[in-house]
Amino acid sequence: MQRVLKSRWFVCGVSVSVGTALGLSVAASSREQQQQDTGGGLLGRLPVVPIPSVEATASSELTVFQGGGAVTKYGFPSLANIKTRESYVTSYDPRTRTASWVIEQLNPSSITGPSNRNNCDFKEDDSIHLYHRSTNADYRGSGFDRGHLAAAGNHKWSQKAMDDTFYLSNVSPQNPHMNQKAWNNLEQMCRSLTKHYRNVYVCTGPLYLPRQEPDGKLYVRYQVLGRNHVAVPTHFFKVLILERSEGVELRSYIMPNSPVDEKIPLERFLVPIETIERASGLLFVPNIMKRTNTLQAIAAK
Amino acid sequence: MQRVLKSRWFVCGVSVSVGTALGLSVAASSREQQQQDTGGGLLGRLPVVPIPSVEATASSELTVFQGGGAVTKYGFPSLANIKTRESYVTSYDPRTRTASWVIEQLNPSSITGPSNRNNCDFKEDDSIHLYHRSTNADYRGSGFDRGHLAAAGNHKWSQKAMDDTFYLSNVSPQNPHMNQKAWNNLEQMCRSLTKHYRNVYVCTGPLYLPRQEPDGKLYVRYQVLGRNHVAVPTHFFKVLILERSEGVELRSYIMPNSPVDEKIPLERFLVPIETIERASGLLFVPNIMKRTNTLQAIAAK
Repeated sequence: MQRVLKSRWFVCGVSVSVGTALGLSVAASSREQQQQDTGGGLLGRLPVVPIPSVEATASSELTVFQGGGAVTKYGFPSLANIKTRESYVTSYDPRTRTASWVIEQLNPSSITGPSNRNNCDFKEDDSIHLYHRSTNADYRGSGFDRGHLAAAGNHKWSQKAMDDTFYLSNVSPQNPHMNQKAWNNLEQMCRSLTKHYRNVYVCTGPLYLPRQEPDGKLYVRYQVLGRNHVAVPTHFFKVLILERSEGVELRSYIMPNSPVDEKIPLERFLVPIETIERASGLLFVPNIMKRTNTLQAIAAK
Repeated sequence: MQRVLKSRWFVCGVSVSVGTALGLSVAASSREQQQQDTGGGLLGRLPVVPIPSVEATASSELTVFQGGGAVTKYGFPSLANIKTRESYVTSYDPRTRTASWVIEQLNPSSITGPSNRNNCDFKEDDSIHLYHRSTNADYRGSGFDRGHLAAAGNHKWSQKAMDDTFYLSNVSPQNPHMNQKAWNNLEQMCRSLTKHYRNVYVCTGPLYLPRQEPDGKLYVRYQVLGRNHVAVPTHFFKVLILERSEGVELRSYIMPNSPVDEKIPLERFLVPIETIERASGLLFVPNIMKRTNTLQAIAAK
């Protein structure tokens, strides 16, 4: 644990001490943030700005410019890679060979049922190109678990839904201790929230956070596994969107991909949603604000 | 240079010696590749497989499942980020704060004209969310150039087209020596090809290649710059799609983001397109094959 406690990770001008008090120890460093902190509390930190518009469709339609030339005559090298499965919706990152994010919806009826994970096997996702797909062989002997992003235990309602969580595109290399203890506790906590909220939306994904090296500069460094170079994230996030009749509550967590002392309360891993939005390249708040004007962000209880 | 010559980078089971003979030194390691090498030459290495289908649209439409619940009720955390500009089409990576790829179309009329780069200034791309955008301040004092992906010199045909290449979303941190010498030579070579080909399509982007560390494991490691943590790619690629009346030719290059001896012929940076497709998470060949059945891949002259 000592190594973990000493690690310092950086999220865009904000340094984060990992292991204890993650979230609570996040220090706003920009003047903009400090100004917002003085009024409006946590929600004040969450500016609502439009999501960048997609100016061209991600289809193979031609984009014509410059005297009738078609710059994308030979297509687009990438598409959004959004996939809908029985139990989740996900966006795949073909460069890191794991998902960028996976969203699930939990409620009391989805987390109960006769499905059995002993009937499930991890399987390659053959909807992903051979070049960009992770395989069981990549994980073998690596020392990392095949860690579910959408958790199997969240989808007992249907064997097919549970099976779908075993696609390797819903899996990232996870430290076994973290996966089986603190991360598992976080997953269980998500399920327990279905008792108190009408709907629980959970979005999970990998992070690749930079760290200061002896030369004083910041570097992102992560291992890659096997022939297909599956990226080992430095951290994982969970963003919880919690619905009840009075409004919507947001809780966002970051956990390091290394042994995490189970004695540390899960609340200590809460971070402002901005931390995850900056580090992941994703946006949550603008979309949520389109649906509700009662968003309450919970960064620490 | 010595450091560069000694570096070994890995692209999915293939090790690459960078600096000299990049491409020529690429050793096929998979049985699949070896089999293909024995028949059909380089083109034989380019299996034509379908691009993974996008199973859900990247719009904010609801995806309904499980008893009417809408798992994406609060939207998608990411979209394709494809932008069309006067001189190029690009896909932005909001996590690394630089493009994933930029495609331009060059011909004799596009590379000539009265436009002057002295009229241009690097500018923030305000179509990108504040959290995910690079700024001039991020580059200041970093020791890295603001390296164009779509080159300014390719778009003399229109001042607006040239101006658009100065968006920081079309820029990556580049080693100044490499940017101003060997990479510049590669850009000039692309322009010179417009004399010999009807159309020259150029796709440029960053790579983040893993390297073996003393523990024998592979790690991706790259610096990040400034408050916004702009990723410094380890390498850059250029994929050239060259049209002439007889068919289409493909040339693909990787150059390290470090000083490169100008005496090394540009041909030595040619690599099989598969190397770039695997490392970048992008696909070129399947799209090209939809348009032509005369593709000739040039990996070394």
